[in-house]
Formats: sequence, structure tokens, C-alpha cells
Amino acid sequence: MAQIGFAGLGRMGFPMARNLVKAGHQVTAYDVDRGVYAAAEAEGVTTAESIDAAVAAADVVISMVPTGAHVLQLYLGEGGAFAHMRKAALAIDCSTIAVSETRAFHEAGAAAGVATLDAPVSGGVMGSQAGTLTFMVGGEADHFERARPVLEGMGRNFFHAGSAGAGQAAKICNNLLAGISMIAVSEAYALADRMGLDAARMREIVSVSSGGCYSLTHYPPVPDLLPNVPSSRGYQNGFASELMLKDLRLAERAAMDSGLPLPLGGMAAAIYGMFCNSGHKQLDYSGIINLLR
Amino acid sequence: MAQIGFAGLGRMGFPMARNLVKAGHQVTAYDVDRGVYAAAEAEGVTTAESIDAAVAAADVVISMVPTGAHVLQLYLGEGGAFAHMRKAALAIDCSTIAVSETRAFHEAGAAAGVATLDAPVSGGVMGSQAGTLTFMVGGEADHFERARPVLEGMGRNFFHAGSAGAGQAAKICNNLLAGISMIAVSEAYALADRMGLDAARMREIVSVSSGGCYSLTHYPPVPDLLPNVPSSRGYQNGFASELMLKDLRLAERAAMDSGLPLPLGGMAAAIYGMFCNSGHKQLDYSGIINLLR
Amino acid sequence: MAQIGFAGLGRMGFPMARNLVKAGHQVTAYDVDRGVYAAAEAEGVTTAESIDAAVAAADVVISMVPTGAHVLQLYLGEGGAFAHMRKAALAIDCSTIAVSETRAFHEAGAAAGVATLDAPVSGGVMGSQAGTLTFMVGGEADHFERARPVLEGMGRNFFHAGSAGAGQAAKICNNLLAGISMIAVSEAYALADRMGLDAARMREIVSVSSGGCYSLTHYPPVPDLLPNVPSSRGYQNGFASELMLKDLRLAERAAMDSGLPLPLGGMAAAIYGMFCNSGHKQLDYSGIINLLR
Amino acid sequence: MAQIGFAGLGRMGFPMARNLVKAGHQVTAYDVDRGVYAAAEAEGVTTAESIDAAVAAADVVISMVPTGAHVLQLYLGEGGAFAHMRKAALAIDCSTIAVSETRAFHEAGAAAGVATLDAPVSGGVMGSQAGTLTFMVGGEADHFERARPVLEGMGRNFFHAGSAGAGQAAKICNNLLAGISMIAVSEAYALADRMGLDAARMREIVSVSSGGCYSLTHYPPVPDLLPNVPSSRGYQNGFASELMLKDLRLAERAAMDSGLPLPLGGMAAAIYGMFCNSGHKQLDYSGIINLLR
Repeated sequence: MAQIGFAGLGRMGFPMARNLVKAGHQVTAYDVDRGVYAAAEAEGVTTAESIDAAVAAADVVISMVPTGAHVLQLYLGEGGAFAHMRKAALAIDCSTIAVSETRAFHEAGAAAGVATLDAPVSGGVMGSQAGTLTFMVGGEADHFERARPVLEGMGRNFFHAGSAGAGQAAKICNNLLAGISMIAVSEAYALADRMGLDAARMREIVSVSSGGCYSLTHYPPVPDLLPNVPSSRGYQNGFASELMLKDLRLAERAAMDSGLPLPLGGMAAAIYGMFCNSGHKQLDYSGIINLLR
Repeated sequence: MAQIGFAGLGRMGFPMARNLVKAGHQVTAYDVDRGVYAAAEAEGVTTAESIDAAVAAADVVISMVPTGAHVLQLYLGEGGAFAHMRKAALAIDCSTIAVSETRAFHEAGAAAGVATLDAPVSGGVMGSQAGTLTFMVGGEADHFERARPVLEGMGRNFFHAGSAGAGQAAKICNNLLAGISMIAVSEAYALADRMGLDAARMREIVSVSSGGCYSLTHYPPVPDLLPNVPSSRGYQNGFASELMLKDLRLAERAAMDSGLPLPLGGMAAAIYGMFCNSGHKQLDYSGIINLLR
Repeated sequence: MAQIGFAGLGRMGFPMARNLVKAGHQVTAYDVDRGVYAAAEAEGVTTAESIDAAVAAADVVISMVPTGAHVLQLYLGEGGAFAHMRKAALAIDCSTIAVSETRAFHEAGAAAGVATLDAPVSGGVMGSQAGTLTFMVGGEADHFERARPVLEGMGRNFFHAGSAGAGQAAKICNNLLAGISMIAVSEAYALADRMGLDAARMREIVSVSSGGCYSLTHYPPVPDLLPNVPSSRGYQNGFASELMLKDLRLAERAAMDSGLPLPLGGMAAAIYGMFCNSGHKQLDYSGIINLLR
Repeated sequence: MAQIGFAGLGRMGFPMARNLVKAGHQVTAYDVDRGVYAAAEAEGVTTAESIDAAVAAADVVISMVPTGAHVLQLYLGEGGAFAHMRKAALAIDCSTIAVSETRAFHEAGAAAGVATLDAPVSGGVMGSQAGTLTFMVGGEADHFERARPVLEGMGRNFFHAGSAGAGQAAKICNNLLAGISMIAVSEAYALADRMGLDAARMREIVSVSSGGCYSLTHYPPVPDLLPNVPSSRGYQNGFASELMLKDLRLAERAAMDSGLPLPLGGMAAAIYGMFCNSGHKQLDYSGIINLLR
């Protein structure tokens, strides 16, 4: 069992830390918001007053914070984690951040002599709570193998996407497609309705045809086709539209930095942006169908 | 075995008629282009000098023509098929046409006392040749059951989408999604490449995640990920971009007629339109990736 | 002074008829809604119980109705205006309708031996009330000259755009550009604000530069840059977003009928469509800026 | 007359330096490419072997370089211009760069005790050669007044857009609108043609209506409506599409940094990106019409 330093006890990070304790690891956690410490301690998590106290004795450091700026602040600089970690330790950043930011994280780790992985997740808050997250991991293969027993405490699927940054790249590609396809699927369901084609029948037919996709089959924006999806509970408690927008902007930024046109990705970002502006940023991203019909 | 009147011996229709002969049916065919008659006769198809001669004795009439205008010209009016078919016969239109046009076809059939089905296909020229087409069928359930033994001579999957017009509606929804997702997938593959993420690895990971779709997994626009897809043979002999554009315009038209915004569908149509204008209208629609990178 | 038959006493048509009376013409009007007759009579308009009664004695027939279907119903068929007009009379349709529909209007007029013009207007309800409309006219040059003295009772600017249908075509091109540019200008004002650039200063500079346009200078979506524009009165009493959407759809339809990609026009239509769906269809189209910021 | 240090003798900068000499100023110039020095000296420009030699004695330093990275490299750091300029001097950066980059330029100038202005231009290579550039200037008002006599040697119109960065912001807003409107105007001209409306007639009518804009009237993408525009000389020697794309990306970046959706700006960038990818990056941006028709 590993000695784990954990940074970031938010809606995603808190259940991850709890699941690591349940899996038998010793977890020492840090968060800028001390308000969550009592609840964390009740779950068996040890809390620390500073990031260096959280990571000093750790075999593995795991971070789950909102933005790339937080990641860099957490690890770099004099008071940062890299300056206080053991050389033999492994730092795993599970935040979803820009490719350029994750590269800065890896480079600073290498300069400090610490092994690093980028390991963004998919599965959302529900996946975090259930311990069924998917991890897309970038970094050296042997680091990935070292990380796996720890990651298994928090998730179910583990992909080694490639070298440093490849985890973020895979996450960005996935969410680019998920974000576009949800709008496309909303257009298709709305159009089917206008043409008198039953939604359930459309789903059955197209799911096994060339237009089939995850959003159509497993995450339909039309209520009551499936019981346990956000559309069937008023688009609540899903993957917030503002988070999908954030991920699409990471895709746009990476495309822009490399001179790549991204017509549908850019349009999807603009559409979610207008949806968020209309007062719906907390709604699940499948709620976008209501902007169309 | 059925007595079949067949209209339209083009790239799609010719192999369909041949497969019906192979399945044991008696096929009498008509086409405005007499140049294909010798080849058709060599396959055991009887040819007719007029549409009324082709349909007069038929149990089932099948049409496969390029546009809705052709369908209406073929069936309606004094010299049209409905005026000369037996009352007990069944007319199956396999063309991909507008919802408003297929409604006119069904209504004229009803007025003439003839049973009708709309039954557009997916699977392309290769599916037509191999007899593996998918049929999406709209019309009464008992007509669908009557049609099935004949359709089985030409295809493998048969969906009853709903009442009159539902077949066209399902086809339009499917191709709307296929057309959008191919551009989205092209953006994702191009972006992965710019971010240093291996295309095959991206495909593996995203295929089992929330961004997964048919275009990504089974029809990748990047060459040499799969052997038998158009991208691996120079985008030749696939589903021509101009045909994808035609189908997206049917979606746009149906959306416009019902006052529905179709942001990504409209943008996809514009992108394929610009691609066709750039001299690539015969290329498979997965060739769209070359407009991006 | 002319004897005028007038069809369509709506928000646009009523003030036009009143202004014709003020200009000294004799106006006999027809509307399907008899509820406006008392008000029309109070303005000196004679009312008629049928379209044939309104047009039978007219030198000039003027129509201003909501859609192309209304135009065709009004003029064509046994009870329609063309069947009851004097051969020497001139029919001027001021409605904004599809190019294909206005062609049907002209052709039916020619078949009936009646001179025809398409003459859609710009200037909105306020221009109609003030008698300052702009007319974009399609049809023969001598018909245009015949019409001018009558049109002068209702407007201020008169363009002969070309032969039959050219008036509608000019109107469609103008509103396509006006609709797109209002969104573009909204993006520019919103972006200026985010970058700390004063809206009035941006307007001054760009108005005389290569990005200048009517929407930026004369119809700003930002309140209080100009006194008498919709943005300075809560986007009320302007050109309703649903009407702009209708005109953009005419552009889309014409583009689709001729196989032309219309990427920005299509996107603009989708954005106004989503704005209308969000409950804002009565707001002036410059209100679109609130979807962005 | 001023003592001027000048950095960047490219296609834009070279004629600007020459015009300053013609206006009576003493110009000492620096460029990383020594290959242009002979030609510059032939025009009366003194050349320097390092940036510090170029700026040490200058009253005013002017820079015109390709990117923000060049600007920061030129001015910041130990060997940079700010470390070697006289405290009383004024630095004017005429490059078109990101708002965040121009802010770094101003802040470093303030830290070094040097007055700074951002002053991007419009008018292109032809405007630079003719000395008719437009300058959009950000910075303190008295610095703007100090700069004016020098700017008058290179241009004709001078706008004080506001405080530091406002010049770049105005340039970005202008080119955002110019880039979008050129595509919109191309759609309108192409659509007019399909509808049988004469291009010259459309231009006349819409230019004085609500759809009017600079691109339509003064920079038409249709050849031979005006003699001296790029479309009338095969789209050569204009404002290269890749430069328009660069400017639209600055707009996108600024929007993204402030969380603003930019639907048409993003789409326009994607369309110019696809046009550049199709082998046309050197063509004037009005050549985009050929992607549509």
C-alpha cells in the first residue's frame, strides 16, 4: 500500500481521496479551502496545513485541481510540491489542462528529478464517487505501470496514451468529439421529431448505422429514452455545460497554437458559450437540445 | 417468387436488379438510358420500352432513381407507374429524396389504390453489389412484412422506421450525423497529430469513451488505420462527397420547412460544399480531412 | 391620381394604404381580417368584401402580405386578383417572398395579360408609417416608370434592380448582409468591451476603416451610442428577430436551390433561430448581442 | 526633425523607414536580415549592427516586426531596446500582436522608464509605400501627440483609441469585421449571380441600404467592378489570406482569454484556414469567393 499526497479535495478530488483510503492507501491531503477538512478526516484522510507537508513523505502525489494555473502553482516554485517531494516519488496530475501547461509540469518535474504523469479522467462526479473513472495517461511506460495499482483504487479503465502530454491530448480529442456530437445528436433528435419519426426508433436504427455515436445511444439529450441519464432528470447532476465549454476551449487553444482550422469544434464552443450565457452553465451539456427546439 | 417491375438501372439500381434475379425473382426493368439494357439482359433481367410495360404485370415495383423529381415523374401523371400498376401491387421507392417529396409519392399511391413504402438504403455501391444493403422503411407494417422477402434479395438489415415517410426521415437523420461526425473526427485526428498523439492510439482510446462514433472507429479519414476504407485507397470508390452534400441538403431542407435551426448540419453542408467546389466532389467524404490539415 | 386596389392591411400594409390616400389616390382595400376595416375607413380607405371587388376597377394593385403562399393565393386561381384585374392594370407585390415564388407570380401575371412588378421594401414599420420606405423593384423598366408615381406616395428611394424577380433578389442579398453583419458587429463590440476599448471610440475608428458597415455605424447593438435605435429602447419596436430569421431563410433557400454553400448566412440563420427559441423572437435583431456577452 | 531608431525592414517596415527619411528624419535601422541593408542605405537609412546601436541615440524608436514574440525579444531583456534607450525617448510598436503581448510591452517600458505606444496600422504594403497608412494608437494622450509628427511621415489617418493596448484592440476589432464581411459579401455576390441579379446593380443598391459595408462597396471580391482592387488583378498583391487569418486568430485568442463566444469570427478563421490549406495563402483575402462558387 502506498503513502499518497493528495492535492485538491473538490467535487472530483474528494471522492477520489476517499476511494484511495478505502483501497487501503495512506492519504495525506491538502486543499486551499480548509472547510472540507473535517469531512475528509471523517473518511480517514489525514489533512495537511501546507502542500509541502502533504507531499514530503509521499510515494505518489496526486493532484486534481480546476486549471493549469493551479497545477503550475501547486508544483512549481520554491514552495511547490516538486521542491519538497522525495526523488523516488511519482507525481500524477489528474486535472484537465492545456497541452502547453502539462508540458511545463513535466519539464519542471524532470528538472527536479521527479517522475511525472499526466492522467486526466473521464466519468465525471458520478464516476469519481463510484470509483469507475477512466484514466488517459501520458508519460513513460514504466511510470504508467508504477501508477496503475494506485489508479485502480479510483477507476476502472486505464489507457497509456503515449509520452508526456499524451493523456491530455487524448482527453482533449475525446471531449472535442463528445461536445460536437452532443449538438449533432440534438439536431438529429429535434429534426426526427419535426419529421414525425419516433425518437426511440431513430435511436435504434441510427445506433447500428453509419451515424451512430456514444451521445446518440448512451447519453441521449431527449428525456426518458434511458433512465439514468441527465436528460431524464431535468439535465441536473451531469457534466456541466461550462465544463464542456472549458474543455472545448482547450481544444481550440491547441488547434490555434498549431495553426489548425477547427470549424465544428469552434462552432460547438460558440454554441455552448451562448448556452452558458443564457443562464444554463450548470445544466448538463445535453441540455443544449433546448437551444434548438 | 415475385414478379418485379424495376425502375432505374444506375450504379445503385443495376446491382440491385441483378441480385433480385439471383434470388429467383422475375425482373422487368426500365431506364431512360437504353445503353444499359444489353448488360442488364445478360444478367437475366427483362427490359421494357416504357415504364407502363415494366410495371403492368408486377406484384412489386421497385424504384431507385437520383432525385425526388424523378420519383414523382416516374409514378405520377397519366403515363406514370401508379396509373398502370395492378391494384394488388406494392410500390417500393428506394431513392433518397425529400420528406415532402416522399409524402407526395405516398399520397398519389393511396389515391391510385396502390400500396406504397419509402425504403431508402445505406451501404453504397459496394453494399448494393454485395447484396448487403440496409433498408430504412416507412409505411404500413403489413406492407413492410410483404416487402421483406423481396428486400432480402438485396440487403441484410431491414428497419421498419414508422409510417409513410419515416424511412426517409431515418435516412436523413443518419446521414446528418454521419456527415457531421466525419468532419468532427477529421478535426480530432488532425489535432491529435499536432499534439503528438498517435492516431491509432487515439482511435483505440476514444472509441470506447464518450467521444466514440462510427466514423472514428469504422471509417477513419486517416489512411492505413484500417485496410478496407476509402482513406486507405486514396479516397476513391467510396461515398462521393457530392452525395453526402445532397443528403445534408435534404436535412437542411426538412429543418427549414419546420423552422428548426440546424447549426452544425448547416455548417457541415457548407464545408462539403466548399470541398466539392475545390474540385473534390467525386472523392469519398472522408477526404474532407485534407481541407483541414 | 390612380385608382388603387390594395391587399393586406397589416402592420406594414396599413400605413402604406393610408399614405396612398394622403398622396391623393383612391384606395380600395381588402384583408382577410375584417377587424381592421373600421380603422382603415377612418383614414379614407374604401374597403372591399372580396379581393375581386378590391381590384376590379384598379389601375394599380398593390399587395403586402406575410408569405409567398399568401401572394400566390391572392393572385392566382379562379377567385384570384389576376382573373379580375383590368388588362391595362399593373400588379405590384411588395411582400418579401422566395425568388421561386415571385417567379410564379410574374408568370401567372404574364399568362393573364397583366403587368407585374416585385417590389419588396426596406425600412420596417417605422419607414412604412413615415412614408420613407426603400423599394427594390424587379420587372420591366417601363412598368417601373409607371409604378414610380404611386410608390412615391409610400417611400423615398426607388431602385430598379433588374428584370422579374430582381427586386426580391436584391432584398435577399441586402438582408443576408444585414443579418450577418449585426452578429459580426455584436462580436466586435463585445470583444472591444472585454479588451478595454471604449465602444464609442471603436465605432468612430472602425466606421472609417475596412471593417466599417451600416450595422456598426447606424444601427449599433450597444445601447446609448445613438438615440433613435432599438438598442437604446430595450430592443423594442424594431425589426423583429423572427422576421430577420425569415429573410435569412429565403437566402438559404435560394442558395440551396442553386447548390451554393452559404457558410456565414447559414450560421447567422441558426444563431437567430436559437435566439428566437430562447424567447426573444419579438426583440429587434440587434438584441442578438445579448446572446454573446 | 527627430532622431529615429527603426527595427524591422520587411515588406511593411522598409517603405515606412524610407518615408521617414523623405520626411526629413534621421533614421538608424536594424534588422536580423542584413540582406536588406544595402537597399536601405541607398534610401538614406543608416544601418546598425545591433538593436542597442540603433536605439541608443534615438528620440523615437519604431518597430514593425511579424509577431508578438519578436516584439518582446526586441524590447525586453538585457540586450533589448528598453535597456539601451534614453529615458526621454518614446517607443512606438507598429506590429499587429496580441493584446496580452502588447500589455507586456507597455509594462516593460514603464518599468524601464520609457514612454510607449502601441500603434498598429491598416493600409497594407501599398499604404506603406504610398505613406497613406492609418494608425490606431493606444497609450497616453500626450505620448500620442508627441508621436503624431513622426507618424505623419508614414501615414494619413491617426486615431487615438485609448490607453495602453487600445490600438491593438481597435485593429483587432476592425480586422475581425473586415474578415467576416468579406466572406459575407462573397456569399451575397455569389447568391446574386445565382438569382440572376447583376453584381454591379446589387452593389449599388445594397451599398446605400442596411446591408452596406466597406467590403461590398470598396473592396469587392468580384472582378472588374472596380479597377484598382485585388479581385481585378487575379487577387495578387493584396492583403494575403494568411495575414487575415493571423489577425482573426488574434481576435479569437482575445475572445477566448475573456470567455467570449465568437461564432462568426471563429467560423471566418476556420474558412480562411481551409482556404490557406487549399494552397491559396498568398492570395488576397477577397479570393475567398472562389471557395464558394
